[in-house]
Order: sequence, then C-alpha cells, then structure tokens
Amino acid sequence: MADYREMWSQLGLDLELHDQLCAALPPLFEGAFLHQKDRPSGMDYFNMVIAEVHGLRIKELVDHKRNGGFVAGSFCVYVPEELVMALGGVMVGLCAGSQFWVPEGEKVLPRNLCPLIKAALGAKLSKTCPYFQSVDLVIAENTCDGKKKAWEEMGRLVPTHVMDLPNRKSPEGLALWRAEVRRLVSRLEGISGRKLTYDSLLSAIDKVEAKRQALRELYETRKADPVPISGIDALVASQIAFYDDPDRFTAMTAQLAQECAQRVQGGIGVFPKGTKRILLTGSPIVVPNWKVHHVIETTGAVVVVEENCTGTRYFTGSVDRSPRDLDGLLDALADRYIRDINCACFSPNDGRADDVVRLAREYKVDGVVDVTLSFCSTYQVEQGSLQRRMKAEGIPFLALETDYAPGDEGQMRTRIEAFLESL
Amino acid sequence: MADYREMWSQLGLDLELHDQLCAALPPLFEGAFLHQKDRPSGMDYFNMVIAEVHGLRIKELVDHKRNGGFVAGSFCVYVPEELVMALGGVMVGLCAGSQFWVPEGEKVLPRNLCPLIKAALGAKLSKTCPYFQSVDLVIAENTCDGKKKAWEEMGRLVPTHVMDLPNRKSPEGLALWRAEVRRLVSRLEGISGRKLTYDSLLSAIDKVEAKRQALRELYETRKADPVPISGIDALVASQIAFYDDPDRFTAMTAQLAQECAQRVQGGIGVFPKGTKRILLTGSPIVVPNWKVHHVIETTGAVVVVEENCTGTRYFTGSVDRSPRDLDGLLDALADRYIRDINCACFSPNDGRADDVVRLAREYKVDGVVDVTLSFCSTYQVEQGSLQRRMKAEGIPFLALETDYAPGDEGQMRTRIEAFLESL
Repeated sequence: MADYREMWSQLGLDLELHDQLCAALPPLFEGAFLHQKDRPSGMDYFNMVIAEVHGLRIKELVDHKRNGGFVAGSFCVYVPEELVMALGGVMVGLCAGSQFWVPEGEKVLPRNLCPLIKAALGAKLSKTCPYFQSVDLVIAENTCDGKKKAWEEMGRLVPTHVMDLPNRKSPEGLALWRAEVRRLVSRLEGISGRKLTYDSLLSAIDKVEAKRQALRELYETRKADPVPISGIDALVASQIAFYDDPDRFTAMTAQLAQECAQRVQGGIGVFPKGTKRILLTGSPIVVPNWKVHHVIETTGAVVVVEENCTGTRYFTGSVDRSPRDLDGLLDALADRYIRDINCACFSPNDGRADDVVRLAREYKVDGVVDVTLSFCSTYQVEQGSLQRRMKAEGIPFLALETDYAPGDEGQMRTRIEAFLESL
Repeated sequence: MADYREMWSQLGLDLELHDQLCAALPPLFEGAFLHQKDRPSGMDYFNMVIAEVHGLRIKELVDHKRNGGFVAGSFCVYVPEELVMALGGVMVGLCAGSQFWVPEGEKVLPRNLCPLIKAALGAKLSKTCPYFQSVDLVIAENTCDGKKKAWEEMGRLVPTHVMDLPNRKSPEGLALWRAEVRRLVSRLEGISGRKLTYDSLLSAIDKVEAKRQALRELYETRKADPVPISGIDALVASQIAFYDDPDRFTAMTAQLAQECAQRVQGGIGVFPKGTKRILLTGSPIVVPNWKVHHVIETTGAVVVVEENCTGTRYFTGSVDRSPRDLDGLLDALADRYIRDINCACFSPNDGRADDVVRLAREYKVDGVVDVTLSFCSTYQVEQGSLQRRMKAEGIPFLALETDYAPGDEGQMRTRIEAFLESL
C-alpha cells in the first residue's frame, strides 16, 4: 500500500489507533478470501479495492473535495444516492462493520444495541474511519429505534441529516417520504451550491441504474449449478458498491459478471455441482463482516443469494424514467425506494417473505439462513413470521444470531453443519 | 372478592393459570401499599379497584358488551380514547406489567425485547388477562420497533388496529397522524355501527379532559412539602386511569385531590418535611409494576412526580375545543397528542428534557431518576442526552435499568441509597 499517512493525518485520523485497525484487516481478508480456489480473475479488482479501502479511495475523495465537490456518507439502502450524484457529490457507505469500533461506541450508547450502530458511532468517535473524516454530511435515516436515536449523538460529532422513513407503506407514508426526498434535495443544494435539474437527476438515475444492473447480471450467474462465484466474493462486490467510484465499479462488476457467465456456459464452478445452496437473509452485512459467509462456505455449502441490504435489496427495482419534469422524476425516485425495498422497518412487511420465497425458487436453494445482528429487534421479531412462511412453503430454515465479536464461529459452524445434514 | 369464575370461564380464561395469577397479586399489593402510614382515605377506592381488577371492572365490560357496546384495549397514551368513547365504546389499558406473562411471550418473541411487550403477548397467549379476553379490538401503535413488529404477532391472536406514528414532529408527520386518527374513526365506526358526530366527539373530549384535570389537581398537591400522598399511591391512581370507568375515576380522583389539598393546608404529609424528593422519568410503569417506587419510598425518599406515560404524559395538554366542525375538532384532537406528549419515539425529542427540567423546578425535586425497562432502546439511547442536560442544569441524575423479574431490588436499593446520600 502506498504511504497515506500524510493524508490520514490531515483528515484528523488517530494515526496510532488507525495503524492497529490497518494491521488487523489484511489477515482477516486473507483468512476469509484468499484461501479460496478457482476464484474468477475479475475478483482481482475487488481484492485491490479492499486492500486500498483506506487508501486509494480516500485519496479520490480528498481530490474530489479539493476540486470543489462534496462527499456524503450513509448507512442504508434507503438513502437515494442519485441525489448526491446529481448534485456533484460522491456518496460513500460509512464504517460500521467491525468489532474494533464497538467498545468506543458503547461509551455513548447502551450495550444492548446492535453492533452495527455501536460500531458506526465508535468509528466516528475513535477517529479511525477516513470515510467519516472525509464526509461533509452524514445522510442518516430512521429505519430502526437504535439508529433513529443514535443519530442524535451522531449529530453532535458530524453534520447529520436524518431522513424520516414511515413505518408503513401507506399513501400517507409515501407522501411523507416524497417530502423527505425533497428536504434532502434542499440540504444537498445548500452544500453543493448547485440547483438540481431534470437532466442532472436523470443522468444520475441512469448511472445508479447501471451499477445496479451490473450487480443483477452478476447475481444472475449465481443461479447456475455449479455456481461460478462464491457467496463471499459476491458479497464483497455488493459491499464495495456502497463506496467505490460508480462508473469504475459498474465496469468492473459487469466484467466480472461476464466472466462468470462464461464460466456457467463452460460448466465451471467454484464448488462442485450439487453443493448445498443457501439463501442468506436478515440484517445488513457490512465490511469487514464476512463471518457467516465464511463459516457456511467452509462447511461444505455455498451462499448463492443474499436477500438483505448488502444483497438483492440494494439493486431491486428501477426508477421509472418516464416523467418529463423534475417533480415527477423526484416522485418516481422516491417511489422506487418505498415500493421495491422490503425492510423489516415496515409493518406489515410480507413483501420480504414473498421475496425470500421467490428468490429461493429462482436460485434453487436448499435452505434459508436468517442471520440477525444481536439486538436487531425488527428482523428478530420478524423471524417468527418468516419461519412460519418458510415452513408453509416447505423451505428448510435456520435462524442465526451473531454480533461482531469473534468467538461464536465454532457454535455457528456446529449449527450450520447440523442444518446442512438435515437438508 | 365475589365469585367471578363463571364470567372468567365464559371469557375463555385459563382458569387454573389465572388462579395462580390472582393468588400472586394480593401479597404483592399488600407488600407495596398497605404497609404505608397515614395514607389519604381517598385511597380506599383505589385499593378496591386493584382488589377487583379482574372482577368488578370486567363485569362492567361484560355488561357493556351485553348492552350492545364495544370494548377497545390499548397500551399507549397516544391512542385517542376520546374516539372510542365518542362512539359508545369503553377503552381499557391491557395487561403488560407482570413477569407472570413474560415466559409465555418469549415463546413467540425474542428474549432481547422489553418486558412490557413480552408480557403483553404473553398475557394474550396464556389467556390469563380478562381485559384481553373482553376486547373487540386492540388499538396498537408504532411507538417502538418492538411494539411495531410484535403487533404482527398480536394480530394473529386478536383483532388489532395499528396506528402509525411518525418518527418526527414535522408537518408531514402531523399530516400522517391526522390521517391515522381518521383511519381509526372509520374502523371504530365499523365496529360500533355508529357515525362519529361533532357533539359526541366534543362530549368525549370533555369527559377525558375532566379525567386528566382530576389527575392534574392530584399532582398539583404533590408540589407541597411535606407531600400529602406517596408516589406509589399517586402512581396507582395514574395506572388505574387507563382502565377504570372514566366518570367514576374522575369523581374519585377529584375527591382524593381535594383531600390531599386539605392535607397540604393543614401541613399533613405522608413523609416528614424535608424528605428527599425524586422526579421519576423513563419507560412506562404499568400495573402491577410497582418495584422502583417501592424501593425509593422505603429507602427514605419520596417520588413527587412521574414524567412518563403513567404520569404527566398521560394528562399533559388539552384538546383545543374551539373548532366548530367535526373535521376541525378531529385535527385538534390529533394535534394535542403529537404536540403535547414528548415520547422518546420521536427524534429529536428535546421537549422531554425541557419537561423534566420544568417539572423538576415546579416540584422542587432533589434528583431525577431515569428508569428504563431492559431493551427499551429509545429511552436508553436518550439517556445520554438527558444526563448531559441534567448536568448542565445542575440537577442530580441517576439512571436505572430494570425488568419485571424479581431479584434486582437489592442492587437497586444500594444504588438509590448511594444516590440519596450524594444529594
């Protein structure tokens, strides 16, 4: 890795602590990824992105800001990146995936809170996330109690704009969300000094759609048996979608998808034909949280699809491009988010179970593993109804709860082994 | 107690299990209440109400239904009881306050969820709550993730109407809530076979206002030193407000308030003048959860005001009676709930800290005790900002977390003793 210490220092990182973090990532990545055999060569790019996660990409953000651009960060697939892009900004996913940040987060948040939220606050508080140090604005959202209330603390540390999501996909809920989309536009116009136009929004919609389309093409190849790419490799590509340069990401992911499609044509897989196929659903799985995929794929099964925010929910549905004015296009943008993404923050949320059933059939899975983060109440309560639905559909189902702390892999492996044997 | 077994049996209660519950309540009530000295004689009525909690009041509900009326149940101060009343219904608070119901609730809900929600589900599942067995409709609300998602399970057990609360007190949030109030009207009109009229709504608003006013008068007397009534006695009156006959409750509470006012004039108190005065804030405290009040008031201090849903939030603010048509009156009703009640379900919720500071001054308290139920994330995360605010205002602050299980009284007593010594 190039020497970025000068840049990190200027970003106000705690260099000593950040060194510890940087030292921990390579062995973690090696252990989870580099032991794999017959990986598509297109993964080389994604290996590089992870290796440069606090380097090259941060330098791009710094350069972008130096050229007058702004950077916004988020934690959620409901935040419309199209708006940031249309106003000349760069959107990045923020650090929230490592146990490294949890203890610091617990200084300001209750321990009985999901690790993702504690890690997010801890990453900012500890000054070890260069993304946090680069953003002009955090675009947060009310998707759960923990986040909603934690943003009050976040707002003390970094400029934070909270988007209010409704709890129900009602006409009034949609009206509220459409108004929220416009409130974000105003905020971003203020930061960028630009006015949102029909053309700039349409162009951003196309750019994001291209990114989502590349991921769809990649996922499409995972329907094959043997599967041309491991679940953990597909996962890391989805994770990287949140913070990589969008055009480059689209090109590299489309290329990877093409390589995988060729593999499918040639009958080439990374696991033997007939390997047990798993659909993984539940809470978001963000970098560098690769635990469950790693355990499943070193226990003789393969994850072929993720029905979660770092999976299909990221690229589901398209914005309707037919409106001919800005107002209509903004409504169409808002509608795609509420209509197409089925998060447990909504009640009822039967659409998610429908999605899981549909994907289970399309990807011909042998079983569904529902992975929730500890204290992620919305997904944990929904587990009951999801389990009943899976039973009714005759789809084997395993519920796992985990957090970011190491130490539960052994128990998890035992449970997954028993589940696979039962299939 | 009269013999209600025939009635309970007809309501579908599990009689054997319900006997266990009924056997547990009297010693609990005795231990928490009857040891107190110099209680106002007006408390005799409330003693009787608790003794008859599963008897006389249930018989009244059964009679009301026999006469063609309906019964609705709720768990939250945001559910507008005025609408139920205006359409000829009776509104009752539902069972959710005892550890007795928690294990049954944990069969369908994660253990990492607040005891109030687990107890609510458990009370219904175990068929030991005659209120649940009497209601035609549960009127639920999206005030937290746990409740929002648990209602999906509740809806499988009993007709449940969920009111959607916004996460923010924005104009769009208020519009959503006003629409929700109208959606509830439609549902209740369907159940009652009546149409809501201006006159019936105004009359119900007056009836509920009278109830709230009686509680305000009672609380007003608690500003005196010596305080004429214990905190636990005032608490049980507030708790009973949720399910007693409203006219009778108003009359008896006004009478109690009058007696307390006379005591104040005569300098008569239940604790010596100069006893340390506590404001209690936090999560709701519902029947028969009297733990924290009991511990505080047997440790040499007195609770003089509760800033919670079973305290000031229940009676804060009045509905504007000036609109001259039904639509205007419905808006005014909706507005009172959003405007005047400061629940941690909102973000930001600075109004709550303002309320605590104002009440702390008005009731001349020596310290604030913030009591949260385990896994009540909204109040627990808000604890940080509340604590900072108290520090800035120079008000001593103690944070306590508890659930319904016995066993933490000793530790709680130690912490409260240390807090009182520090005052």
